[in-house]
Amino acid sequence: MDKPVPAIDASGKSKTEHVVVEEPLQITLDGHPISVVMRTPGHDEDLVRGFLISEGILPSLEAIRRIDLDSKANHALVFLTDDIQVDLAKLTRHVFSASSCGICGKASIDAITGNFPPLENPLRFPKEALLTAPDTLRAAQETFDTTGGLHAAALFDASGKMLAVREDIGRHNAVDKLIGHALSNRIDPAATMLLVSGRVSFEIMQKSLAARIPLVAAISAPSSLAVDFAEKANQTLVAFLRPPKFNVYAGRLA
Amino acid sequence: MDKPVPAIDASGKSKTEHVVVEEPLQITLDGHPISVVMRTPGHDEDLVRGFLISEGILPSLEAIRRIDLDSKANHALVFLTDDIQVDLAKLTRHVFSASSCGICGKASIDAITGNFPPLENPLRFPKEALLTAPDTLRAAQETFDTTGGLHAAALFDASGKMLAVREDIGRHNAVDKLIGHALSNRIDPAATMLLVSGRVSFEIMQKSLAARIPLVAAISAPSSLAVDFAEKANQTLVAFLRPPKFNVYAGRLA
Repeated sequence: MDKPVPAIDASGKSKTEHVVVEEPLQITLDGHPISVVMRTPGHDEDLVRGFLISEGILPSLEAIRRIDLDSKANHALVFLTDDIQVDLAKLTRHVFSASSCGICGKASIDAITGNFPPLENPLRFPKEALLTAPDTLRAAQETFDTTGGLHAAALFDASGKMLAVREDIGRHNAVDKLIGHALSNRIDPAATMLLVSGRVSFEIMQKSLAARIPLVAAISAPSSLAVDFAEKANQTLVAFLRPPKFNVYAGRLA
Repeated sequence: MDKPVPAIDASGKSKTEHVVVEEPLQITLDGHPISVVMRTPGHDEDLVRGFLISEGILPSLEAIRRIDLDSKANHALVFLTDDIQVDLAKLTRHVFSASSCGICGKASIDAITGNFPPLENPLRFPKEALLTAPDTLRAAQETFDTTGGLHAAALFDASGKMLAVREDIGRHNAVDKLIGHALSNRIDPAATMLLVSGRVSFEIMQKSLAARIPLVAAISAPSSLAVDFAEKANQTLVAFLRPPKFNVYAGRLA
């Protein structure tokens, strides 16, 4: 999603440029504001669903009775089923999530790890699925070429087939939109590989683990904490995926 | 700052790769934990100083009596002078700042704007200072080439001279480290231009305004909210700075 804005080039000439749209979305849970996410509008319901799962706020989408989305007002009102109890005090989450922030809202260093159990017997992906994925992702990117401001992320199955692709100014939002989409459409994240267009830091691994995604691949660099996290979580982490080259930093292929 | 990790390449061969270090730093204000920032270790005191100013938590560095930094334990204990009152309840900031999050911790959409007054009579920079800055930044980048995982940011004066450069896994951390450095070393941010190696979103503009930086330039794309914010703040915003080309999205040059 882009927006035309006036700009002046280096020679002093006026022109119109297209920039990526960044807007806040306030997420409210049964009347309690829990987070404001700076995101690119679009697929907002999937974003909310994915965020609530990937941040460990809800155990499953079954807990959601209804989402009233007012995209114009940038509000998402989430109503929970009667039998679900969310410890809002524990959330301490009257917080903002910036466009590239996936772990806002935890109260201490201890809270950033250990919320989700490691994977058991994770699916191993064949090398072939990795090698074709970057070209498939690039072909599917809709907006990057016009604004240069979007991160892309996509889910693939083990045959290398792309199941969904999302773009957002925040890389963690693109991942949340994918997770929300998958869980709403009977796609089992445990059978998918996540590919992100940029770097992979701790937050992306954490969100992937929450959704039980066994393999995360990145076109660009991993961080030290992403590598450590993947090891502990029993996830496979591939980075610098630039076929025919790539590096496996944790886990293994089939 | 990088760390060697074992990796396996596409042919199955073991090798050592260098990844950028990402670690949490917990910031405590007079005993109250206010944020955990995911950052690349180094220049941690500047990071803390810059964060406290750029997030509007402290009015000036005069408010800080002492910082006890335990970089190994990833804790920074900040002690304030007796005459400063910080409304910790208003902060609602028992939160995490992810490696690319600069606006964690505000309670509502309203809180993200309007905290800092717009600039009055901001310094205008000559085109020449812009044109040489990207090459100067690139030459100064220390780690990017070995890990591919760092964002760089630098402050320049109006003659195009680089005053300081910082690198971090989080782009907002690199900016906070610069702001902390400038304010600790009698560099007036109001006389500087900030150049960032990547994209520029809302959060970078907000931090710059807090430090009264009149011009923000980015090698890559701006977001719609960054453009809107710069207009309202009376800041100059330059993006896609790829000499001899660039675009001015808000404000103007000399």
